[in-house]
Amino acid sequence: MNKPVLHTVLSPKLLKLYDCTNTVVVIIDVFRATSTIATALYNGAARIIPVDTVEKCIAIGAQTKGITAGERDGKVIPGLQYGNSPAEYPESFIKGKTLVLTTTNGTKLLHMALNAGAAKVITGSFPNLSAVCDFLVKENKNVLLGCSGWKDKFNLEDTLFAGAVINKIKENFTIHCDSSLMAEQMYIQHKDDMLPFIRSLTHWHRLEKFGLEKDLEYCVTPDVANVLPLYKNGDLVVG
Amino acid sequence: MNKPVLHTVLSPKLLKLYDCTNTVVVIIDVFRATSTIATALYNGAARIIPVDTVEKCIAIGAQTKGITAGERDGKVIPGLQYGNSPAEYPESFIKGKTLVLTTTNGTKLLHMALNAGAAKVITGSFPNLSAVCDFLVKENKNVLLGCSGWKDKFNLEDTLFAGAVINKIKENFTIHCDSSLMAEQMYIQHKDDMLPFIRSLTHWHRLEKFGLEKDLEYCVTPDVANVLPLYKNGDLVVG
Repeated sequence: MNKPVLHTVLSPKLLKLYDCTNTVVVIIDVFRATSTIATALYNGAARIIPVDTVEKCIAIGAQTKGITAGERDGKVIPGLQYGNSPAEYPESFIKGKTLVLTTTNGTKLLHMALNAGAAKVITGSFPNLSAVCDFLVKENKNVLLGCSGWKDKFNLEDTLFAGAVINKIKENFTIHCDSSLMAEQMYIQHKDDMLPFIRSLTHWHRLEKFGLEKDLEYCVTPDVANVLPLYKNGDLVVG
Repeated sequence: MNKPVLHTVLSPKLLKLYDCTNTVVVIIDVFRATSTIATALYNGAARIIPVDTVEKCIAIGAQTKGITAGERDGKVIPGLQYGNSPAEYPESFIKGKTLVLTTTNGTKLLHMALNAGAAKVITGSFPNLSAVCDFLVKENKNVLLGCSGWKDKFNLEDTLFAGAVINKIKENFTIHCDSSLMAEQMYIQHKDDMLPFIRSLTHWHRLEKFGLEKDLEYCVTPDVANVLPLYKNGDLVVG
């Protein structure tokens, strides 16, 4: 039997070049949306509602009695309650609650994938690396590893995560894709020096000035929040 | 004084994210358009007219008494005279002549860069690596290394060439760009095993079946056709 096909998409701008139908799309936004999503669900959040605008975040927060959250430039957006840091969502705070989250890059790609007819949409980040890999192998469907990037530009942290997934599950998939080949090679090259290496990335320099070094280091730590966020009827829930 | 800024653009789809004005844009289409352009000019072609459609190629070929050339899927396009292989353009054939060339990816990106207001447009490939680097350093302007990709998808051969340029001239530029960081690291990783490595690329598998291995090996050989193709008033000429 033919193995399913896996591709890596390096920017939301490139998503249209790939077929999303009959495909599991993994939304990757390592710094920090998908790391925060995994962490909040791991710590017992009932559900996370990803929304693409601040207005929707406020409106849906009011409807659902949920916690509204989102940042721009490292600060909580005026009108919302919390930010985009995984450290803000310990079990003592988030357990059983609804989180309504708006982010710059990840949420946008998630809605693009849904509009493009993805069979299933999940979110991936180093904190839930193994859960993502286990799910993809079990599903045995075609896979798109979707890097959210930064305002549609390529970024390395999302690419490194795609490479980590490929490195773990490539035997189960057919992969003829230069993006995937590059992603895995960059991951292999840096998996043992991840903490120093991420200090050379543009996103690090963008967030470092807001004192977020600890957040960023957490966001490249594998399996510390190992659940599977699965999109179902508007919510991300543990799959 | 501030150094000029260098960015790498991994697909034509991403060009709009960058500012082309006051910028030298390097069109990169290693397999094989920009390698063929360097070779034909190195071997004495009077000029190369890059056109984006077969119809224009035939019409401008008739107007200029030029040689018409272009391929799809490794074969000369019906209605045109020659293909897209650097080996087709030795000095004995091309010296003093006009070549009207249509290609899938490189020509398209070149016209996009012109429309976006690029200050200067040149073409780059391993056969003219040093000429490109010398020009960029001398110009001392902002630079976009524009990878043509394959039908807008990321490819590694163009990325490796961008990495080779960065590796040679990075001291002269300000570079804060994950695409450039990745490109240089992939180049460093593979510069000493380029011939075996390119056999793992998707484009190699696409063209190999047409018996083009020698072409592809030539296209990753540095400085064997070391001229600078510079766009002027519709023509690529030696700059």
